[in-house]
Amino acid sequence: MPEYFFDTEAEADYAPDKMKKINLYKSPRLFCDVYCLLPGQAQKEHAHAENDKIYHQLSGTAEVCIGEERRTLRPGEVAVAPAGVVHGVRNTSRAPASLLVVMAPHPRL
Amino acid sequence: MPEYFFDTEAEADYAPDKMKKINLYKSPRLFCDVYCLLPGQAQKEHAHAENDKIYHQLSGTAEVCIGEERRTLRPGEVAVAPAGVVHGVRNTSRAPASLLVVMAPHPRL
Repeated sequence: MPEYFFDTEAEADYAPDKMKKINLYKSPRLFCDVYCLLPGQAQKEHAHAENDKIYHQLSGTAEVCIGEERRTLRPGEVAVAPAGVVHGVRNTSRAPASLLVVMAPHPRL
Repeated sequence: MPEYFFDTEAEADYAPDKMKKINLYKSPRLFCDVYCLLPGQAQKEHAHAENDKIYHQLSGTAEVCIGEERRTLRPGEVAVAPAGVVHGVRNTSRAPASLLVVMAPHPRL
């Protein structure tokens, strides 16, 4: 039976060499990941021509850039990267940071 | 210029007559809403043949059913309703509850 329920805090896992992406669910329609960033770790700025991405800050803080805008997300805050808009995330804080990330459609399924 | 950043706590809004859905972003690829449920309010069980839905509990608790499973989500917990699987949400607690909800693709755009 597929798994329907997840605890994002229990799923979070960090790696010293680079940010970690924990996949919770994927289909051709979307993926749902937990991104885990230690201080200094980042996903560099990029764009997807045909996919929207939603970031939701779970724990800690992270600097998210969307197009020309750059903001520090705190828990409960959301950033939306519409298709075609450059985006990236960096942990500029001194503590671990985790985000729930949904992208639709899945870029490779 | 489109809005890229949102504070889910500031967006939350409750109505005494029925649960409220606050849309943060929509495109043909997905919608991202904040669902706000006062005690006793619910979205009754239903299914979408071609759309996945992600629930992420923001505040309070809510009972989410996915297929045959029924769980009380606490903040930080996620429930996934794959396309074709019956799902619904009910606030069975005594306090307001809010969830971030992403559906992909958008069912009507």
